[in-house]
Amino acid sequence: MNDAHSVTYPQTVRRWDVFEISCNGTPEGNPFTEQTLSAVFHGKNESVTADGFYDGNGVYRVRFMPSFTGDYSFTVRGSMLDEPYTGSFTVRPAGEGNHGPVRVHNTFHFAYEDGVPYYAIGTTCYVWALQSDALIEQTLETLKHSAFNKIRFCVFPKHYAYNLHEPVSYPFAGTPMDSSVLTMDNFNQYDENSTGNDWEFTRFNPAHFRRLENCILKLQTLGIQADIILFHPYDRWGFSRMTAAEDARYLRYVLARFAAYRNVWWSLANEYDLLRHKTLKDWEAIASIICGGDPYRHLRSIHHCVHMYDFSRPWITHCSMQRTELHLGAEYTDRWRDRYQKPVVLDEIAYEGDLPYGWGNLTGEEMLRRFWEGALRGGYPGHGETLLGHENVLWWSHGGKLHGESHKRFKFLLELLSQTPGLGLQKNPAQAWDEVSAIPQEGQYNGQYYLFYYSFMRPSSRVFTMAEDAAFAVTVLDTWNMTKDEKGTHRGTFTVSLPARPYIAVQLKRVDI
Amino acid sequence: MNDAHSVTYPQTVRRWDVFEISCNGTPEGNPFTEQTLSAVFHGKNESVTADGFYDGNGVYRVRFMPSFTGDYSFTVRGSMLDEPYTGSFTVRPAGEGNHGPVRVHNTFHFAYEDGVPYYAIGTTCYVWALQSDALIEQTLETLKHSAFNKIRFCVFPKHYAYNLHEPVSYPFAGTPMDSSVLTMDNFNQYDENSTGNDWEFTRFNPAHFRRLENCILKLQTLGIQADIILFHPYDRWGFSRMTAAEDARYLRYVLARFAAYRNVWWSLANEYDLLRHKTLKDWEAIASIICGGDPYRHLRSIHHCVHMYDFSRPWITHCSMQRTELHLGAEYTDRWRDRYQKPVVLDEIAYEGDLPYGWGNLTGEEMLRRFWEGALRGGYPGHGETLLGHENVLWWSHGGKLHGESHKRFKFLLELLSQTPGLGLQKNPAQAWDEVSAIPQEGQYNGQYYLFYYSFMRPSSRVFTMAEDAAFAVTVLDTWNMTKDEKGTHRGTFTVSLPARPYIAVQLKRVDI
Repeated sequence: MNDAHSVTYPQTVRRWDVFEISCNGTPEGNPFTEQTLSAVFHGKNESVTADGFYDGNGVYRVRFMPSFTGDYSFTVRGSMLDEPYTGSFTVRPAGEGNHGPVRVHNTFHFAYEDGVPYYAIGTTCYVWALQSDALIEQTLETLKHSAFNKIRFCVFPKHYAYNLHEPVSYPFAGTPMDSSVLTMDNFNQYDENSTGNDWEFTRFNPAHFRRLENCILKLQTLGIQADIILFHPYDRWGFSRMTAAEDARYLRYVLARFAAYRNVWWSLANEYDLLRHKTLKDWEAIASIICGGDPYRHLRSIHHCVHMYDFSRPWITHCSMQRTELHLGAEYTDRWRDRYQKPVVLDEIAYEGDLPYGWGNLTGEEMLRRFWEGALRGGYPGHGETLLGHENVLWWSHGGKLHGESHKRFKFLLELLSQTPGLGLQKNPAQAWDEVSAIPQEGQYNGQYYLFYYSFMRPSSRVFTMAEDAAFAVTVLDTWNMTKDEKGTHRGTFTVSLPARPYIAVQLKRVDI
Repeated sequence: MNDAHSVTYPQTVRRWDVFEISCNGTPEGNPFTEQTLSAVFHGKNESVTADGFYDGNGVYRVRFMPSFTGDYSFTVRGSMLDEPYTGSFTVRPAGEGNHGPVRVHNTFHFAYEDGVPYYAIGTTCYVWALQSDALIEQTLETLKHSAFNKIRFCVFPKHYAYNLHEPVSYPFAGTPMDSSVLTMDNFNQYDENSTGNDWEFTRFNPAHFRRLENCILKLQTLGIQADIILFHPYDRWGFSRMTAAEDARYLRYVLARFAAYRNVWWSLANEYDLLRHKTLKDWEAIASIICGGDPYRHLRSIHHCVHMYDFSRPWITHCSMQRTELHLGAEYTDRWRDRYQKPVVLDEIAYEGDLPYGWGNLTGEEMLRRFWEGALRGGYPGHGETLLGHENVLWWSHGGKLHGESHKRFKFLLELLSQTPGLGLQKNPAQAWDEVSAIPQEGQYNGQYYLFYYSFMRPSSRVFTMAEDAAFAVTVLDTWNMTKDEKGTHRGTFTVSLPARPYIAVQLKRVDI
């Protein structure tokens, strides 16, 4: 580490890791509003300007994620520095398992920046990062053994059924309203207009954001994308009704702290349409701030409750869908792809659980069925678990342990997706009315690979009509019991016997080329 | 019995039973086209003209269903009679369990003519009446122990997968094509244009129609409506491509024979839109013949495959629906009601089975779920069973025994429907997004009775908010396990604990009035 003029930084960093410069400065006054810090980073292939932030205790930081290897220089300017400070460092190749940020690939899919395919299997734990350290550790341990490679969670605490307790920290200095008055019967009388909160919106709580960063980093180690929800409506603290200036200051602070983490995705909001104090114009302004303040172009979307945002807006990189009907959701994936020409991530297609609410009381079978419906239509389904009876720790909000059945079956799906020739599936245009059928997205694999899924149906056999000059290895997949039954090689028109149970899939792989 | 001038008829008949006059005449020439017979019946409250028909062996008959009790006279005229014959008879009150024909009641529902509610629970056995006598008896025995009170079946034989064998009889004199060439692999190369059939379309086969009548009568005894399909596209004999004149002659023969049976419904076609040789004009002409030749105004509809007929046509008494999507069908019941302002009968919402086809491979659970979705939206769902593995006897085509699971649960539903205050359910306008909720159709029962159904969802409880001044007896119904759990009496806002399993319903019955 160098240490000159109170500026500290490492000599080397790995590609797509975080390079961080620290400066000492004054803790007096309001460092968040009164001090400035920024740096410009130069490498052979890129120049990046990054804003710094105050991290408490007189420490200011500026972060950078290098996208290339080689020698870099930087110049840091700050109100706490007498003059600009210039330094240099070396970016070494990425560490093992580090493939860079996830990018949109081939219009409808995702790949890491190094080209490795990324098949999103997401889950939602809205405020897992604002729970006790022990519970956070348990969540990470659960994730480690799961198939999940994306998790959606909030910066702000959440006020909602089964989520009435205080978070371990708040984003701002100040004190919250008295929550001892809350019960499951009266909680929905408390909203963003609740009284008794006393926040200093110009003073961030660095510990709150450090906690979130720690979670982002640990997710990174596990190969999991952090889909960070910046605003949401389930609020008794007033964080959803800050002014535009307060929102902007908050966003710049988040961007300065989080943008250099390669596994970050930006979700502007959970259920933006329920935030009564924000207009479409506000959301577009927020999007502008995100786009302007994130030199790494992390994936960006916004999630609705009832009224979809216009996903064709250019700043939106992918659709972040919620089912808007009781019965169907994942089944619309291919239509949404057609309409928006972007990847379709099904962030909420209801959760496995037993809540009194229709969005949170699917059986494991139905959750898994929705996954396969969405995945074979070329989308990326997401999970959540809302099972009661575990001391009020619900995965969907708090993390902890998984108690459901669907999550055990996602590795089976992920392995199958990973076998796709090229990257990504699309709906088979020749799909019959009574099947879900997928082919590779990439045209060069035409005629070489097919998946069929029978969902709730229970065929005892199916007839396949393929080209006479092509031989296919046929495998029957029981998506619930996670068994594979190899049925030999077939060509032309052939019948495959099936187990006459729901949730069966068939894979056809061309083998004669 | 009188016996004068070769005219025979009984002295008495019961209301809504069949009064039949027989005349002897010549069997020479073509009695179907060369002889005429008709009668006019007069009672205090009605005058009905009915056409007669030739029943073979020199016997001609004319039938009449009296709708009132008391003294009736008739005059019969026929080419085999020297002069009109006049007679009289007495109509006695209806026998036990005879409530007359089923009529539309209160726009969306059905009642027997005497006002007794009729909640249709239908099934489909397309050609059960054209099987062996032993199989027909077995079907009747099965029906006797079932909840079914309507069965859909064809006059013509059926040519389709799992239905390649010859019927026991044909509607016309002549000989069919050689069916020994048929296999499950080649059958769909044979259609209404198949060669080798040799039919005399002017000569009916009375034995064929007697067999059907016998079935209609036995159904009547069991209290089951005979929903008779007059045309259908699954044909290798050419019966679906007769000329308009041949169709008209066939329809008049059917009307003369069947119309006097009180439990007859007319289904102009199964999947009319697949009959390539008929136009909408043809169907309207057929409808005119039915309307003109049926003095009893039996219920009339027509069933589609893909393109719904315009159910707003005035001759159509009720919608005869087929699901037109893979996932949803019964769920549209309330919208179809709104649109057509007629009863919605869900004659095909796919079948419980394990066929290779999506229309015939539902689990029992899914079949039952569709029943409840449709019934609580104020419609009348229908069943079919297509399970293989029973010596190629499939209920849906042949009748026989039921091997599925859903049918065992329909009595439970029927009993519940029969408890509706007034007659018939409608969608509760206050239905929440995550429930199916019904209230009585008849406004006078407003606020007194509610049903809720949670379909595939799995709530562990639900909160109900009812009027504070009304007390409700709460019963939780497990529609699959057929259990009822009485949860006491509640008022205002109350929570009902539920078993966190799918297929649960809740009944609220006001008890303080």
